Amino acid sequence: MFIGEFDLIARWFTRAPRDAARVPLAGGDDCALLAPTPGMQLAVSTDTMVEGRHFLATVPPERLGHKALAINLSDLAACGAAPLAFTLALTLPRIDEAWLDAFARGLWALADAHAIDLVGGDTTGGPLAICITVFGEVPPGQALLRSGAQAGDRLWVSHPEGSGIGDARLALEGFRGSVALDSGAFESLRQRMETPAPRNALGVALRGVATSAIDLSDGLIGDLGHVLARSRVGATVDADALPTGPLLAAQSLTLRRECTLAGGDDYELLFTAPASHDDAVRTAAAQGGVAVTCIGHIDAEPGLRIVDAAGTPLIGRWAGFDHFRE
Amino acid sequence: MFIGEFDLIARWFTRAPRDAARVPLAGGDDCALLAPTPGMQLAVSTDTMVEGRHFLATVPPERLGHKALAINLSDLAACGAAPLAFTLALTLPRIDEAWLDAFARGLWALADAHAIDLVGGDTTGGPLAICITVFGEVPPGQALLRSGAQAGDRLWVSHPEGSGIGDARLALEGFRGSVALDSGAFESLRQRMETPAPRNALGVALRGVATSAIDLSDGLIGDLGHVLARSRVGATVDADALPTGPLLAAQSLTLRRECTLAGGDDYELLFTAPASHDDAVRTAAAQGGVAVTCIGHIDAEPGLRIVDAAGTPLIGRWAGFDHFRE
Repeated sequence: MFIGEFDLIARWFTRAPRDAARVPLAGGDDCALLAPTPGMQLAVSTDTMVEGRHFLATVPPERLGHKALAINLSDLAACGAAPLAFTLALTLPRIDEAWLDAFARGLWALADAHAIDLVGGDTTGGPLAICITVFGEVPPGQALLRSGAQAGDRLWVSHPEGSGIGDARLALEGFRGSVALDSGAFESLRQRMETPAPRNALGVALRGVATSAIDLSDGLIGDLGHVLARSRVGATVDADALPTGPLLAAQSLTLRRECTLAGGDDYELLFTAPASHDDAVRTAAAQGGVAVTCIGHIDAEPGLRIVDAAGTPLIGRWAGFDHFRE
Repeated sequence: MFIGEFDLIARWFTRAPRDAARVPLAGGDDCALLAPTPGMQLAVSTDTMVEGRHFLATVPPERLGHKALAINLSDLAACGAAPLAFTLALTLPRIDEAWLDAFARGLWALADAHAIDLVGGDTTGGPLAICITVFGEVPPGQALLRSGAQAGDRLWVSHPEGSGIGDARLALEGFRGSVALDSGAFESLRQRMETPAPRNALGVALRGVATSAIDLSDGLIGDLGHVLARSRVGATVDADALPTGPLLAAQSLTLRRECTLAGGDDYELLFTAPASHDDAVRTAAAQGGVAVTCIGHIDAEPGLRIVDAAGTPLIGRWAGFDHFRE
């Protein structure tokens, strides 16, 4: 059976908006219509995922649907914006109904969890790629930016209670065969890599509390580097303070450092706040349903210094990151 | 020289927003921030162009930059939305500086012509594809929708003064070698195909004048079909009234019919308005800097009837389109 673009969109990617006051028109016309809350700013972000670059062909399509939306929601979280809606541009090599069923299931489940509408987009033929644009709202002046970190601020990272960061990277090492993992451990890590949980409730709760924020997508050092460059500050990070889950904690120190400092795909929030906001940070974390750990502080002196628990600078691969660019 | 994603965006796709009140933040952070005019609805549309599907590898990159934005602006035009901003997600097989120079030149020229900002997006490696999401503004209740056509309305199409629709399709026939065109004619037609002019000024001017609108992207019959389906009406189109430029007018009747009735890629507006609005339609066209031609009317009876200038129904390929689906 041939399924055309209109049928495809109607069957898998069309639902009535959950709130016609917020989304007067979603799909079926040349444009969707959104009615942003008067006075709010609109936060917008776009992320594309291309097979072979951003995900392995082995990822189950349900998880892919989740992740494609999750990484975009994570950008809203990093700005403290409340999610509103999204568009989906899907490029497919073929019409595979089972694949579309599963992909749509994962996508809608996360959309429902965040009470947002899919308001438009298109489908086309070609190598598998998923381009999502998300829209969120934030009061003027309250967006969390990369440019707001101040010397003296504490540096925090979010993570699941009882777990940490770096699991996605450890899963990747498992795929690569460079680390031995039993099947239960591998599946657990793989789920962390393939179904990240965007921290939108935390992001919203950090408005007025955090001075800057970014989501961890490329690895802590690189992502922190963007904050330092735009804020024109430096930082000291305690590598031993970086939270890890039990599976990563059981690995070698070398691998732990690699996964926590340079692993990507965590989609946790890295943020700064003055020490006077410690209680507010913990309250925000509770509101966000996640744990947060202080992993260092912001310095007036440029550059990134990575130290161990004793305060001794790390040597070798982790010694000295003097210069970050925007 | 290796050029990373950040350098690429900084070099080709970064400019300060032209109006910080409308676009408080464009690029460099997790999200862009837009400040929509209070009380206005936000019109959103996404279109992806994939090499080999939506454009030929022979298209000059400057024209490709133009067209990728133009087809998205055209969706805003069809809704009567005033363009505000756009995001660009670019998937590139390689970093080709000359290509990027030209692509960006075409993109920015059209963005400048419409006074809109590029507010975000991403670049990634992979088969050449361009995914743009545009944002526009329209007063609540004034968006031109596909669903508003009324029996008795006149059916109009926009086109350049002294020209018509179907030229893009004629250019495609030229590429296919199925029609003989001298090089000057071919270049002129090719330009119509590769650098369509979105009709945003007309779209805005048609607010409160037109009852429905759509842009011609897939061909007149198919696009009109969407309007008829969503409006639950039918239409009669005078095939001989369809405006053509001199190059298409010189072709056989068969080819003229094919190009005007089923040719795609025109990006003109097809719209309906009550006969009492004829003067207002002409005023809107003047404000939009384009010509408009009445090509038929909307009927209460479902289906599309295509007739000649004498009112005789066409036979063969163009006889009877009883059923259109949304």
